[in-house]
Amino acid sequence: MNKQDYFSDRALGMKRSVIRELLKLTAKPGIISFAGGLPAPATFPVDFVEAAVDGVIENEHATALQYGPTEGDSRLREDLSIIMRADGIKTSPDHILVTTASQQGLDLVAKIFLNPGDTCITGSPTYLGGLQAFKSYQGVPVGVELDDHGMVPEILQATIERLEGEGRRARFIYIIPDFQNPAGVTIPESRRHEILDIARKGEYLIIEDTPYRQLRYSGEHQPTFQSMAPDMVLSLYTFSKIMLPGFRLGWACGPDWITEKMVMAKQAVDLCTPPFTQAITHSMLINGALEKGLETTIKLYSKKRKIMLDSLEKEFADMPDVRWTKPEGGLFLWLTLPEGMSSEDLFQKAVDENVAYVPGSAFFPDNDDFRSMRLNFSYASEDQIVEGIKRLANVVRKNI
Amino acid sequence: MNKQDYFSDRALGMKRSVIRELLKLTAKPGIISFAGGLPAPATFPVDFVEAAVDGVIENEHATALQYGPTEGDSRLREDLSIIMRADGIKTSPDHILVTTASQQGLDLVAKIFLNPGDTCITGSPTYLGGLQAFKSYQGVPVGVELDDHGMVPEILQATIERLEGEGRRARFIYIIPDFQNPAGVTIPESRRHEILDIARKGEYLIIEDTPYRQLRYSGEHQPTFQSMAPDMVLSLYTFSKIMLPGFRLGWACGPDWITEKMVMAKQAVDLCTPPFTQAITHSMLINGALEKGLETTIKLYSKKRKIMLDSLEKEFADMPDVRWTKPEGGLFLWLTLPEGMSSEDLFQKAVDENVAYVPGSAFFPDNDDFRSMRLNFSYASEDQIVEGIKRLANVVRKNI
Repeated sequence: MNKQDYFSDRALGMKRSVIRELLKLTAKPGIISFAGGLPAPATFPVDFVEAAVDGVIENEHATALQYGPTEGDSRLREDLSIIMRADGIKTSPDHILVTTASQQGLDLVAKIFLNPGDTCITGSPTYLGGLQAFKSYQGVPVGVELDDHGMVPEILQATIERLEGEGRRARFIYIIPDFQNPAGVTIPESRRHEILDIARKGEYLIIEDTPYRQLRYSGEHQPTFQSMAPDMVLSLYTFSKIMLPGFRLGWACGPDWITEKMVMAKQAVDLCTPPFTQAITHSMLINGALEKGLETTIKLYSKKRKIMLDSLEKEFADMPDVRWTKPEGGLFLWLTLPEGMSSEDLFQKAVDENVAYVPGSAFFPDNDDFRSMRLNFSYASEDQIVEGIKRLANVVRKNI
Repeated sequence: MNKQDYFSDRALGMKRSVIRELLKLTAKPGIISFAGGLPAPATFPVDFVEAAVDGVIENEHATALQYGPTEGDSRLREDLSIIMRADGIKTSPDHILVTTASQQGLDLVAKIFLNPGDTCITGSPTYLGGLQAFKSYQGVPVGVELDDHGMVPEILQATIERLEGEGRRARFIYIIPDFQNPAGVTIPESRRHEILDIARKGEYLIIEDTPYRQLRYSGEHQPTFQSMAPDMVLSLYTFSKIMLPGFRLGWACGPDWITEKMVMAKQAVDLCTPPFTQAITHSMLINGALEKGLETTIKLYSKKRKIMLDSLEKEFADMPDVRWTKPEGGLFLWLTLPEGMSSEDLFQKAVDENVAYVPGSAFFPDNDDFRSMRLNFSYASEDQIVEGIKRLANVVRKNI
């Protein structure tokens, strides 16, 4: 028998992540990479981890090292409900499910909502890990274009109508409202209302993925979709960008008929998220690690963002056809090359000049855009950002 | 729209775990429960955790608190390859994938091998979490009966032929060869050869799930399927029973064309297993936590097993039609009631008498057996085992 014959159809459709393969190319010495999406290790609240771990091992090792409930540590779910209430979301612990980071949230969403061939609506571009999760269940993501204020309501409406006309009603609308990955754009409140109105009229669920929400450097906080329509929105969060990624801890919050089904699915997926790291996180939260950590993180990334924007302004001054977004938060911005240029073709040349990015095409669900690229400003040092943008501008200039 | 209309077909088929619901009933004060499958907290190597954590936070927080590779920490994969080589398995780190415990191994297996409606062969009875994983992808487990030496080769052969005759070729054969959950039986080497011959002739993959392998209290170690046929066996392991479950750490080992596909699937499932607990575990392993911990664990469980077997011998002496398996290792034994009795009917009565077990019917893939029950001997204290078996015998005697 041929090896391929052993695999399921969904496995045959799985490809290695494009970003993952690119990152290998960027692992050469001397390169300045804006390709990854890693938080800066300087933001990890190491002291809080240390203090919390000691207490957990001392006082609760019998439970922290044991199996735990699938829904998550009840203390942590209480903490999370308080954090969310402070953000204007009227929720309670029984609407919260702890996940093995938000990628698991996306996996569970895909598992409980998508039959093979089912469509779901996403931004175009959107988070690659979301696309991977949806496609891994043979879902078919259908993209809705973004502008500088995120997903465009008119295009969303038109896409819904087109799909309904084709008998391919979407299973949900997947939105990253705050500092979108990869585009760095944020949906203003008025547009959130427009999107909600469209979704409510068609009885569509919204999956709100908001891993960077707490990382705002300028502008006004916008209300979450969860706070505006808790009956039709499932929200996914993670500690990865706001505290640290190494625990793989996140949470989902939404209507209980959805979170209950996610709990059933999670039982078969990993039984429970590690109780050990949940206990540590609970202890860190009640000791203020999140506020303290966010203070440092926001200060650091805000500065790096400014340096990247200033550098772009300076280095691309002679190339007015190159455009980029100006994110009010998060980790990424989105740069668009002049008509006729391809960020994929440019990639190897950039790596040769010791600078790297992710070609934008990786983030599109169903159409190709070869002019864009994603630039991360959280990981590289301030000096590296200055030098890296100079190198990038040189590569673009030479090939324009 | 009806809420049910939002869910995928696989989600509509998901039920809450039977055991999970039963465990709720057993949470009353004074009950002695043999129902769960929890390791005894006394076996957790707390000192090793403490020592390892301090080093990890001190020396490698920048990587341990960051994202890590999907395949797992390369040092841990090396450690695991050495552990497996010591067990006669000629493997290497690039054939090993770290998983978020073995339940994730089962989820990935189901994801990459099972199309909706596909059959897979399992023991009858078998591990409930395996059944849940396979069914969550709409797989159809088909049971092969066990005797006191595990899966019966003749029945396996007949089942394969029957399924092939119906055009429903099984995707894989799922086997728990050592101290099977729930039956407590072990497949001797000669029978492993017979099963392998059958699988090889039909070009079937074997999924070997062996979470308790290191917990042997009597008899001879039998070689793993992995060591006997590395080209056609994928093996799943976990630290949950041999060290501690609270990290949710396990691993898969097998042909690289399978583990590579599992890596692709895992990218979309959770990106990576927590680097923090992997780093701690690596440090624990190089400091001897596994050997030291196993020594304690084997001593403790061996004694508890003897106490349970002795108590059964004594308390059921007047009921010769009640039979039970005598496991050489692991955490469970399997008790069969006399013809005509139902362990489900008896369950509430047992709980009323303050003793609990899992009715055997939970573990059968495709047929019901109401006479059996699973008894766990790792969690209850020695005194509780003596008292609990006495209570159980009283309940059976009253209802025989």
